[in-house]
Amino acid sequence: MDLMDQATAREWLAAAVDEARTGLAEGGIPIGAALYGADGTLLGRGHNRRVQDGDPSTHAETAAFRAAGRQRSYRGTTMVTTLSPCWYCSGLVRQFGISRVIVGEAVTFHGGHDWLAEHGVRIVLLDDPECVAMMSDFIEKNPALWNEDIGE
Amino acid sequence: MDLMDQATAREWLAAAVDEARTGLAEGGIPIGAALYGADGTLLGRGHNRRVQDGDPSTHAETAAFRAAGRQRSYRGTTMVTTLSPCWYCSGLVRQFGISRVIVGEAVTFHGGHDWLAEHGVRIVLLDDPECVAMMSDFIEKNPALWNEDIGE
Repeated sequence: MDLMDQATAREWLAAAVDEARTGLAEGGIPIGAALYGADGTLLGRGHNRRVQDGDPSTHAETAAFRAAGRQRSYRGTTMVTTLSPCWYCSGLVRQFGISRVIVGEAVTFHGGHDWLAEHGVRIVLLDDPECVAMMSDFIEKNPALWNEDIGE
Repeated sequence: MDLMDQATAREWLAAAVDEARTGLAEGGIPIGAALYGADGTLLGRGHNRRVQDGDPSTHAETAAFRAAGRQRSYRGTTMVTTLSPCWYCSGLVRQFGISRVIVGEAVTFHGGHDWLAEHGVRIVLLDDPECVAMMSDFIEKNPALWNEDIGE
Protein backbone atom coordinates (compact mmCIF):
# COMPACT_ATOMS: atom_id res chain seq x y z
CA MET A 1 0.00 0.00 0.00
CA ASP A 2 1.24 3.38 -1.03
CA LEU A 3 1.63 5.95 1.72
CA MET A 4 0.03 8.65 -0.43
CA ASP A 5 -2.01 11.21 1.47
CA GLN A 6 -5.51 9.70 1.57
CA ALA A 7 -7.15 13.12 1.28
CA THR A 8 -5.33 13.76 -2.01
CA ALA A 9 -6.17 10.28 -3.26
CA ARG A 10 -9.86 10.86 -2.56
CA GLU A 11 -9.77 14.29 -4.14
CA TRP A 12 -8.26 12.83 -7.31
CA LEU A 13 -10.76 9.98 -7.23
CA ALA A 14 -13.56 12.55 -7.33
CA ALA A 15 -12.60 13.48 -10.92
CA ALA A 16 -12.86 9.82 -11.95
CA VAL A 17 -16.20 9.41 -10.15
CA ASP A 18 -17.48 12.51 -11.92
CA GLU A 19 -16.53 10.91 -15.26
CA ALA A 20 -18.27 7.68 -14.28
CA ARG A 21 -21.45 9.58 -13.42
CA THR A 22 -21.30 11.36 -16.79
CA GLY A 23 -20.99 8.02 -18.54
CA LEU A 24 -23.95 6.64 -16.63
CA ALA A 25 -26.04 9.70 -17.53
CA GLU A 26 -25.18 9.09 -21.20
CA GLY A 27 -26.50 5.54 -20.93
CA GLY A 28 -23.02 4.06 -20.77
CA ILE A 29 -20.98 1.88 -18.45
CA PRO A 30 -20.17 3.94 -15.33
CA ILE A 31 -16.40 3.72 -15.12
CA GLY A 32 -14.29 6.87 -15.06
CA ALA A 33 -10.60 7.65 -14.89
CA ALA A 34 -8.14 10.53 -14.74
CA LEU A 35 -4.41 10.79 -15.33
CA TYR A 36 -2.42 13.11 -13.07
CA GLY A 37 1.10 14.38 -13.67
CA ALA A 38 3.97 14.02 -11.22
CA ASP A 39 3.29 17.59 -10.04
CA GLY A 40 -0.42 16.90 -9.44
CA THR A 41 -1.64 18.54 -12.66
CA LEU A 42 -4.65 16.87 -14.26
CA LEU A 43 -3.39 15.66 -17.66
CA GLY A 44 -6.57 14.05 -18.94
CA ARG A 45 -9.81 12.39 -17.87
CA GLY A 46 -12.44 10.25 -19.53
CA HIS A 47 -14.94 7.44 -19.23
CA ASN A 48 -15.91 4.18 -20.85
CA ARG A 49 -17.55 4.83 -24.23
CA ARG A 50 -18.50 1.34 -25.44
CA VAL A 51 -22.19 2.22 -25.65
CA GLN A 52 -21.93 5.89 -26.58
CA ASP A 53 -19.48 5.45 -29.48
CA GLY A 54 -19.94 1.75 -30.18
CA ASP A 55 -16.24 1.62 -29.37
CA PRO A 56 -14.99 -1.35 -27.36
CA SER A 57 -11.47 0.07 -27.19
CA THR A 58 -12.44 3.07 -25.07
CA HIS A 59 -12.25 2.01 -21.47
CA ALA A 60 -12.08 4.74 -18.86
CA GLU A 61 -8.31 4.46 -18.45
CA THR A 62 -7.59 4.48 -22.20
CA ALA A 63 -9.92 7.50 -22.56
CA ALA A 64 -7.99 9.41 -19.89
CA PHE A 65 -4.68 8.35 -21.42
CA ARG A 66 -5.81 9.53 -24.87
CA ALA A 67 -7.13 12.81 -23.49
CA ALA A 68 -3.71 13.51 -21.96
CA GLY A 69 -2.19 13.46 -25.45
CA ARG A 70 1.39 12.53 -26.27
CA GLN A 71 3.75 12.58 -23.32
CA ARG A 72 7.46 11.97 -23.46
CA SER A 73 7.40 10.10 -20.16
CA TYR A 74 4.85 8.84 -17.66
CA ARG A 75 7.34 8.67 -14.79
CA GLY A 76 5.65 9.95 -11.66
CA THR A 77 2.16 10.01 -13.20
CA THR A 78 -0.89 8.54 -11.45
CA MET A 79 -3.84 6.84 -13.11
CA VAL A 80 -6.98 7.17 -11.00
CA THR A 81 -9.83 4.84 -11.87
CA THR A 82 -13.17 4.08 -10.24
CA LEU A 83 -12.65 0.32 -10.79
CA SER A 84 -9.76 -2.12 -10.65
CA PRO A 85 -8.15 -1.97 -14.12
CA CYS A 86 -8.78 -4.89 -16.47
CA TRP A 87 -5.82 -6.61 -18.21
CA TYR A 88 -6.09 -4.23 -21.15
CA CYS A 89 -5.83 -1.16 -18.91
CA SER A 90 -3.30 -2.80 -16.61
CA GLY A 91 -1.17 -3.49 -19.67
CA LEU A 92 -1.42 0.19 -20.59
CA VAL A 93 -0.16 1.20 -17.15
CA ARG A 94 2.74 -1.25 -17.28
CA GLN A 95 3.82 -0.51 -20.85
CA PHE A 96 3.95 3.23 -20.41
CA GLY A 97 5.52 3.18 -16.97
CA ILE A 98 2.70 4.96 -15.17
CA SER A 99 4.00 5.04 -11.60
CA ARG A 100 0.88 4.77 -9.50
CA VAL A 101 -2.74 3.64 -9.76
CA ILE A 102 -5.48 4.81 -7.40
CA VAL A 103 -8.29 2.25 -7.52
CA GLY A 104 -11.76 3.29 -6.40
CA GLU A 105 -12.81 -0.26 -5.68
CA ALA A 106 -11.95 -3.88 -6.52
CA VAL A 107 -15.06 -5.52 -5.08
CA THR A 108 -17.25 -5.73 -8.18
CA PHE A 109 -14.31 -6.58 -10.46
CA HIS A 110 -10.78 -7.68 -9.61
CA GLY A 111 -8.49 -6.82 -12.53
CA GLY A 112 -4.71 -6.65 -12.83
CA HIS A 113 -3.75 -4.35 -9.97
CA ASP A 114 -1.94 -7.12 -8.04
CA TRP A 115 0.10 -7.88 -11.16
CA LEU A 116 0.94 -4.20 -11.47
CA ALA A 117 2.06 -4.09 -7.83
CA GLU A 118 4.35 -7.08 -8.51
CA HIS A 119 5.89 -5.06 -11.32
CA GLY A 120 6.62 -2.02 -9.19
CA VAL A 121 3.51 0.09 -9.74
CA ARG A 122 2.30 1.70 -6.53
CA ILE A 123 -1.33 0.80 -5.84
CA VAL A 124 -3.70 2.80 -3.64
CA LEU A 125 -6.90 0.79 -3.12
CA LEU A 126 -9.63 2.99 -1.65
CA ASP A 127 -12.65 0.68 -1.36
CA ASP A 128 -14.94 3.62 -2.02
CA PRO A 129 -18.62 2.94 -1.18
CA GLU A 130 -19.98 5.15 -3.97
CA CYS A 131 -17.86 3.40 -6.59
CA VAL A 132 -19.01 0.00 -5.31
CA ALA A 133 -22.67 1.06 -5.28
CA MET A 134 -22.55 2.55 -8.78
CA MET A 135 -21.00 -0.58 -10.34
CA SER A 136 -23.06 -3.07 -8.31
CA ASP A 137 -26.24 -1.40 -9.40
CA PHE A 138 -25.12 -1.19 -13.02
CA ILE A 139 -24.03 -4.83 -13.22
CA GLU A 140 -27.26 -6.02 -11.64
CA LYS A 141 -29.31 -4.12 -14.23
CA ASN A 142 -27.04 -4.73 -17.24
CA PRO A 143 -25.27 -8.08 -16.86
CA ALA A 144 -24.90 -8.77 -20.60
CA LEU A 145 -23.42 -5.34 -21.31
CA TRP A 146 -21.00 -5.68 -18.43
CA ASN A 147 -19.88 -9.14 -19.54
CA GLU A 148 -19.34 -7.79 -23.05
CA ASP A 149 -17.11 -5.03 -21.67
CA ILE A 150 -14.82 -7.49 -19.91
CA GLY A 151 -14.93 -10.14 -22.62
CA GLU A 152 -16.84 -12.73 -20.61
CA MET B 1 3.69 -23.08 -31.83
CA ASP B 2 0.26 -23.18 -33.35
CA LEU B 3 -0.20 -25.64 -36.21
CA MET B 4 -2.09 -23.08 -38.27
CA ASP B 5 -1.58 -23.34 -42.02
CA GLN B 6 1.44 -21.12 -42.69
CA ALA B 7 0.05 -19.99 -46.04
CA THR B 8 -3.09 -18.65 -44.34
CA ALA B 9 -1.03 -17.01 -41.60
CA ARG B 10 1.08 -15.22 -44.21
CA GLU B 11 -1.98 -14.21 -46.20
CA TRP B 12 -3.53 -12.68 -43.07
CA LEU B 13 -0.23 -11.01 -42.19
CA ALA B 14 -0.33 -9.26 -45.58
CA ALA B 15 -3.31 -7.16 -44.40
CA ALA B 16 -1.35 -6.05 -41.33
CA VAL B 17 1.74 -5.28 -43.42
CA ASP B 18 -0.40 -3.22 -45.77
CA GLU B 19 -1.64 -1.20 -42.77
CA ALA B 20 1.93 -0.71 -41.55
CA ARG B 21 2.98 0.59 -44.98
CA THR B 22 0.03 3.00 -44.97
CA GLY B 23 1.09 4.28 -41.56
CA LEU B 24 4.66 4.77 -42.77
CA ALA B 25 3.43 6.68 -45.86
CA GLU B 26 1.46 8.96 -43.53
CA GLY B 27 4.62 9.74 -41.57
CA GLY B 28 3.64 7.44 -38.72
CA ILE B 29 5.05 4.46 -36.90
CA PRO B 30 4.86 1.46 -39.26
CA ILE B 31 2.96 -1.10 -37.23
CA GLY B 32 -0.23 -2.63 -38.60
CA ALA B 33 -2.76 -5.15 -37.37
CA ALA B 34 -5.93 -6.96 -38.39
CA LEU B 35 -8.55 -8.90 -36.45
CA TYR B 36 -10.02 -12.00 -38.10
CA GLY B 37 -13.15 -13.85 -37.03
CA ALA B 38 -13.32 -17.54 -36.22
CA ASP B 39 -14.60 -18.16 -39.77
CA GLY B 40 -11.73 -16.22 -41.36
CA THR B 41 -13.72 -13.04 -42.00
CA LEU B 42 -11.76 -9.82 -41.66
CA LEU B 43 -13.44 -7.96 -38.78
CA GLY B 44 -11.25 -4.87 -38.68
CA ARG B 45 -7.78 -3.56 -39.49
CA GLY B 46 -5.75 -0.52 -38.54
CA HIS B 47 -2.37 0.96 -37.77
CA ASN B 48 -0.55 2.97 -35.15
CA ARG B 49 -1.75 6.59 -35.20
CA ARG B 50 0.41 8.27 -32.52
CA VAL B 51 1.85 10.76 -34.99
CA GLN B 52 -1.12 11.15 -37.34
CA ASP B 53 -3.73 11.83 -34.61
CA GLY B 54 -1.46 12.82 -31.74
CA ASP B 55 -3.09 9.83 -30.06
CA PRO B 56 -0.86 7.62 -27.92
CA SER B 57 -3.72 5.18 -27.28
CA THR B 58 -4.00 4.04 -30.88
CA HIS B 59 -1.58 1.20 -31.34
CA ALA B 60 -2.09 -1.02 -34.37
CA GLU B 61 -3.87 -3.73 -32.38
CA THR B 62 -6.21 -1.33 -30.59
CA ALA B 63 -6.99 0.32 -33.95
CA ALA B 64 -7.95 -3.04 -35.49
CA PHE B 65 -9.95 -3.94 -32.38
CA ARG B 66 -11.82 -0.62 -32.54
CA ALA B 67 -12.46 -0.96 -36.27
CA ALA B 68 -14.09 -4.35 -35.64
CA GLY B 69 -16.71 -2.64 -33.46
CA ARG B 70 -18.57 -4.26 -30.61
CA GLN B 71 -18.46 -8.05 -30.57
CA ARG B 72 -20.27 -10.29 -28.13
CA SER B 73 -17.36 -12.71 -28.00
CA TYR B 74 -13.82 -12.94 -29.32
CA ARG B 75 -13.66 -16.72 -29.01
CA GLY B 76 -11.92 -18.10 -32.07
CA THR B 77 -10.72 -14.71 -33.31
CA THR B 78 -7.15 -14.03 -34.41
CA MET B 79 -5.22 -10.80 -33.99
CA VAL B 80 -2.55 -10.41 -36.65
CA THR B 81 0.13 -7.84 -35.99
CA THR B 82 3.36 -6.93 -37.73
CA LEU B 83 5.20 -6.67 -34.38
CA SER B 84 5.17 -8.53 -31.06
CA PRO B 85 2.37 -6.90 -29.03
CA CYS B 86 3.40 -4.57 -26.20
CA TRP B 87 1.91 -5.05 -22.70
CA TYR B 88 -0.96 -2.72 -23.54
CA CYS B 89 -1.93 -4.73 -26.62
CA SER B 90 -1.17 -8.06 -24.94
CA GLY B 91 -3.52 -7.04 -22.14
CA LEU B 92 -6.19 -6.32 -24.74
CA VAL B 93 -5.81 -9.82 -26.20
CA ARG B 94 -5.96 -11.47 -22.78
CA GLN B 95 -8.88 -9.44 -21.42
CA PHE B 96 -11.11 -10.02 -24.41
CA GLY B 97 -10.22 -13.67 -24.89
CA ILE B 98 -8.83 -13.32 -28.39
CA SER B 99 -7.79 -16.90 -29.17
CA ARG B 100 -4.76 -16.50 -31.36
CA VAL B 101 -2.09 -13.95 -32.24
CA ILE B 102 -0.07 -14.04 -35.44
CA VAL B 103 3.13 -12.05 -34.88
CA GLY B 104 5.02 -10.74 -37.91
CA GLU B 105 8.27 -10.47 -35.97
CA ALA B 106 9.66 -10.23 -32.44
CA VAL B 107 13.24 -9.29 -33.33
CA THR B 108 13.06 -5.50 -33.09
CA PHE B 109 10.74 -5.59 -30.04
CA HIS B 110 9.83 -8.46 -27.72
CA GLY B 111 6.49 -7.71 -26.07
CA GLY B 112 4.06 -9.89 -24.16
CA HIS B 113 3.51 -12.80 -26.55
CA ASP B 114 5.22 -15.33 -24.25
CA TRP B 115 2.92 -14.21 -21.40
CA LEU B 116 -0.07 -14.66 -23.67
CA ALA B 117 1.09 -18.17 -24.59
CA GLU B 118 1.34 -18.99 -20.86
CA HIS B 119 -2.27 -17.90 -20.54
CA GLY B 120 -3.54 -20.12 -23.33
CA VAL B 121 -3.40 -17.79 -26.32
CA ARG B 122 -2.09 -19.56 -29.41
CA ILE B 123 0.92 -17.73 -30.85
CA VAL B 124 2.14 -18.01 -34.44
CA LEU B 125 5.51 -16.26 -34.74
CA LEU B 126 6.42 -15.73 -38.40
CA ASP B 127 9.80 -13.94 -38.27
CA ASP B 128 8.87 -12.09 -41.46
CA PRO B 129 11.87 -10.35 -43.14
CA GLU B 130 9.80 -7.43 -44.46
CA CYS B 131 8.36 -6.70 -41.01
CA VAL B 132 11.85 -6.81 -39.50
CA ALA B 133 13.29 -4.54 -42.20
CA MET B 134 10.48 -1.99 -41.93
CA MET B 135 10.78 -1.65 -38.13
CA SER B 136 14.59 -1.79 -38.06
CA ASP B 137 14.79 1.01 -40.57
CA PHE B 138 12.17 3.06 -38.75
CA ILE B 139 13.76 2.66 -35.31
CA GLU B 140 17.20 3.57 -36.68
CA LYS B 141 15.84 6.79 -38.19
CA ASN B 142 13.38 7.71 -35.38
CA PRO B 143 14.70 6.40 -32.06
CA ALA B 144 13.00 9.06 -29.89
CA LEU B 145 9.61 8.50 -31.49
CA TRP B 146 9.91 4.77 -31.10
CA ASN B 147 10.90 5.06 -27.45
CA GLU B 148 7.94 7.35 -26.86
CA ASP B 149 5.60 4.77 -28.37
CA ILE B 150 6.76 2.04 -25.99
CA GLY B 151 7.12 4.29 -22.96
CA GLU B 152 10.92 4.08 -22.73
